[in-house]
Amino acid sequence: MKKVPALKDGDFTLTESVAILLYLMRKYKVPDYWYPQDLQACARVDEYLAWQHTTLRRNCLRALWHKVMLPVFLGEPVSPQMLAATLAELDETLQLLEDKFLQNKAFLIGSHISLADLVAITELMHPVGAGCQVFEGRPKLAAWRQRVEAAVGEDLFQEAHKVILKVKDSPPADPTIKQKLMPGLLAMIR
Amino acid sequence: MKKVPALKDGDFTLTESVAILLYLMRKYKVPDYWYPQDLQACARVDEYLAWQHTTLRRNCLRALWHKVMLPVFLGEPVSPQMLAATLAELDETLQLLEDKFLQNKAFLIGSHISLADLVAITELMHPVGAGCQVFEGRPKLAAWRQRVEAAVGEDLFQEAHKVILKVKDSPPADPTIKQKLMPGLLAMIR
Repeated sequence: MKKVPALKDGDFTLTESVAILLYLMRKYKVPDYWYPQDLQACARVDEYLAWQHTTLRRNCLRALWHKVMLPVFLGEPVSPQMLAATLAELDETLQLLEDKFLQNKAFLIGSHISLADLVAITELMHPVGAGCQVFEGRPKLAAWRQRVEAAVGEDLFQEAHKVILKVKDSPPADPTIKQKLMPGLLAMIR
Repeated sequence: MKKVPALKDGDFTLTESVAILLYLMRKYKVPDYWYPQDLQACARVDEYLAWQHTTLRRNCLRALWHKVMLPVFLGEPVSPQMLAATLAELDETLQLLEDKFLQNKAFLIGSHISLADLVAITELMHPVGAGCQVFEGRPKLAAWRQRVEAAVGEDLFQEAHKVILKVKDSPPADPTIKQKLMPGLLAMIR
């Protein structure tokens, strides 16, 4: 599919981060809270995983690209109107994440961390890496982030986000790479 | 979430079609082939369900809106350039569906129908309803559609797609409804 991430386990290859997480979770029989057996709790994880594709994931990725990556590739910033629209959409999605999913719970699904939190936090770290203050003025979301970091372990959390948190320091792209990626990039700024 | 479909089962409400299907499948203990216990087969269903959100679903929906629904709401067709771009993207996605998912198998995941086929066919019926010839020149995909229709049962298949197959005959939208839906509609044609 020419996409990352991809998993290769022996002869078996698999794309799509959500499918890969579910595969690993089943293969290694991880603790139940990651993807609960309980019918309704499991449905809440599924609901989040389905919802995020066209909302949080889309808008976090667009924020990163419009704020940092496209300027690096194109050599000039995207229009202020487009950037403002992208950040406004991200803001609306963060509000939904807080109001409809997190609510007053410790984690997105309830009192334990689940795959939903893991998928959500990795997306949110994209605009954070781009310098967006996604947790500012959102104390509930900020406290949740701390709980996720503590549940995963601070060292692992920092290691997992090391590259994305340094993305602002990316050197200008090599012209050959730039040329190759351009068609895909232009599709992204539509 | 102000979205359809939504499920209400006693006090439990759930959004997202994929989450709803998985919930019903687990609650009513349907035959294994819909969402196999086998680790790799299950991962293939998950892979398709994750993939389709931003690809087949997006492009089928856009084709329907750009070809039929927006003209009904706006009272004029979308620009030929935009419609052509939308249909070209749909075509690319259909190619991926055929090459990467269906390949030479009877169904998307293997020799049996699964949730992947069900989700895929309902999306494809959107551009079909809009008058796009999505199966023309694609004999493999057309044969697969026949197998899905036979597996589901022809009567149920026709009943499930009755509304979408008549969408071309929609009367012009009521001005009040038009006004209300306009902001969301304008976001859709970007």
